[in-house]
Amino acid sequence: MSRDRRSSSSASAAAIFTLLIVSVSWAQTPGPLNAITDVPGIEVGHFPLPSSDPTSPPPITGTTVVVSKAGAVGGVSQRGGAPGTRETDLLRPENLVEKVNAVVLSGGSAYGLAAADGVMLCLEAQGVGFPVGGGHVVPIVPSAILFDPGRCAAFSVRPNASFGLAACQAATGGPVQQGNVGAGAGARSGGSKGGLGTASTVLTTGASNGIIVGAIVAVNSSGRTFDAQGNFYAGFLELDNEFPLIGPSATDVVPPSNLLQNTTIAVVATNAKLTKAQAAKVAQMADDGLARAIKPSHGVGDGDTIFVMATGTDTRDATNLVNTIGSTAADTLSRAVVHAILAATVGDCRVKSYCEQFPQNCAK
Amino acid sequence: MSRDRRSSSSASAAAIFTLLIVSVSWAQTPGPLNAITDVPGIEVGHFPLPSSDPTSPPPITGTTVVVSKAGAVGGVSQRGGAPGTRETDLLRPENLVEKVNAVVLSGGSAYGLAAADGVMLCLEAQGVGFPVGGGHVVPIVPSAILFDPGRCAAFSVRPNASFGLAACQAATGGPVQQGNVGAGAGARSGGSKGGLGTASTVLTTGASNGIIVGAIVAVNSSGRTFDAQGNFYAGFLELDNEFPLIGPSATDVVPPSNLLQNTTIAVVATNAKLTKAQAAKVAQMADDGLARAIKPSHGVGDGDTIFVMATGTDTRDATNLVNTIGSTAADTLSRAVVHAILAATVGDCRVKSYCEQFPQNCAK
Repeated sequence: MSRDRRSSSSASAAAIFTLLIVSVSWAQTPGPLNAITDVPGIEVGHFPLPSSDPTSPPPITGTTVVVSKAGAVGGVSQRGGAPGTRETDLLRPENLVEKVNAVVLSGGSAYGLAAADGVMLCLEAQGVGFPVGGGHVVPIVPSAILFDPGRCAAFSVRPNASFGLAACQAATGGPVQQGNVGAGAGARSGGSKGGLGTASTVLTTGASNGIIVGAIVAVNSSGRTFDAQGNFYAGFLELDNEFPLIGPSATDVVPPSNLLQNTTIAVVATNAKLTKAQAAKVAQMADDGLARAIKPSHGVGDGDTIFVMATGTDTRDATNLVNTIGSTAADTLSRAVVHAILAATVGDCRVKSYCEQFPQNCAK
Repeated sequence: MSRDRRSSSSASAAAIFTLLIVSVSWAQTPGPLNAITDVPGIEVGHFPLPSSDPTSPPPITGTTVVVSKAGAVGGVSQRGGAPGTRETDLLRPENLVEKVNAVVLSGGSAYGLAAADGVMLCLEAQGVGFPVGGGHVVPIVPSAILFDPGRCAAFSVRPNASFGLAACQAATGGPVQQGNVGAGAGARSGGSKGGLGTASTVLTTGASNGIIVGAIVAVNSSGRTFDAQGNFYAGFLELDNEFPLIGPSATDVVPPSNLLQNTTIAVVATNAKLTKAQAAKVAQMADDGLARAIKPSHGVGDGDTIFVMATGTDTRDATNLVNTIGSTAADTLSRAVVHAILAATVGDCRVKSYCEQFPQNCAK
């Protein structure tokens, strides 16, 4: 409405408004896998995966690694109040290193930062990293953790370097397992079971045609992603009927909890060619995807941290697409959050999954 | 001169000027150990230490840990261009955790971040950390690394978790060994041998009476600390004839190198009661101590990172002392840099120590 009023004030303003409308209209669909691995060169590995024996108990903590062997320009947005991180300082645009080789998401609270040690050794063995002379490399492996220790097992059960090594060795392109795997194994979200989710978006019109944006997220939030009726806050961002439930977006305002041991951590990847500063901007914008999907988010006990990896295999100058990529990243991340909660089909020792609470919404 | 002119412009300005002079005059001496362990509750451990067998080769890389079992309010200044860090995000004043239990300085480039894993396990075994319920703790252990791999041994020789565990188990109050120990073992500085140094300052007048500031630093800088005559840039900051050499401060302007594999990392500790935001401010001011002692500093290939630990055992409100503490921290850090270079009495496989180059200045 206000835009209409402004645009009618003069012919030139109307012309500008029309131009704006044109520039922001773009078609989008999920990629073929609806996963971060729709971005060429991006590989994902989890450790552990659920046992093939259905009578085995589910994993209770774990590690997920997102790998770009060719290196991807990195950025980060760290806005949650209780972070556990490593190698985020080097991502500031003024610092030397441009590209990251992997990002590690892990359970285990700050102890789980050890998982990145194993990822570094895995990548070094493959010659993947920042070259430092003599044929040697230092893999650039930022990491963030979430709090899950002691929930369904001893406090000492948590990821170490061996988890990172195994996740890295398992990393591949192709479909990405979701739910209670890897970093999502021990996750909870606003009193329900949390988990690991992924999504992707392919842009198909105008200057953005061919841009791919993927997200992967371990949702372990103090805030909720759905209301008392089982409607998701991010339901309105669904693409191509990807969510099996029928129903409107959530509108209930649920009282915030004061949980202090949480954290949602994510990676956004794109094939766009971004500078390091642009990758940081995309990370900032992507973080709004958490705001739309989780209420509240970025709280005192959440260490919410979003990494960006821009592979640049689409070699066009993306300077005029940063807003489009950032906005798409936010929506893709919101959808990945919904996927995470929907894929958590089995609760843990104390909380129920979404599908246990609303089986009619998961009946598809 | 300019101050004099300003102060003579009016009587009230003169009064203010006099007040300023009074407020900045304070007496200071090194503490009894002239080491960061002069701050009560601060313990230091190195791994490795030189062998007692003088025919053994010196250590070529290592880890130094600064421990505050009771917890110290933390801050950080990360201004070098090629950092390798962990747990720096949580130090931002708006984030939840107030106190750190240890800071780890380590060689090994980013691989050396693994040393902090061992420090966490060491502290957990002692029940030291952020309480997370059920009697469990998560030790808060920020860390930074310097680049030394491959200099005098295979590239794969670098600190891992066992180095951190050993350094933490060795941590004590009392005298601190300097030179080519712990994180300073493999250090180089502007074409000479670098090393590990410490210093302390006790303030003895006015409102600051009883404030203690200590610093410890691993100097692995691309820039130089002394000129072609062997005079130190920070020579003018000497207290109580602590530097054995006789001579003026350096005034030569030495051309900067383009070394890219360096980094100087440090911890400043104080017994003052600082808020987290004040600790961050002290870290910023302390960083100027590198600027005065090393030329150039904070370069592209330096990951220069300064941590602050404020134990608060002096329980007075320190709000009006932040400038004094920050300034003292800078000077104490500068002096620790000189101590590091002077204590590096043996060069490594390719560079000479200061005392090998200027034996007459080390004859004391």
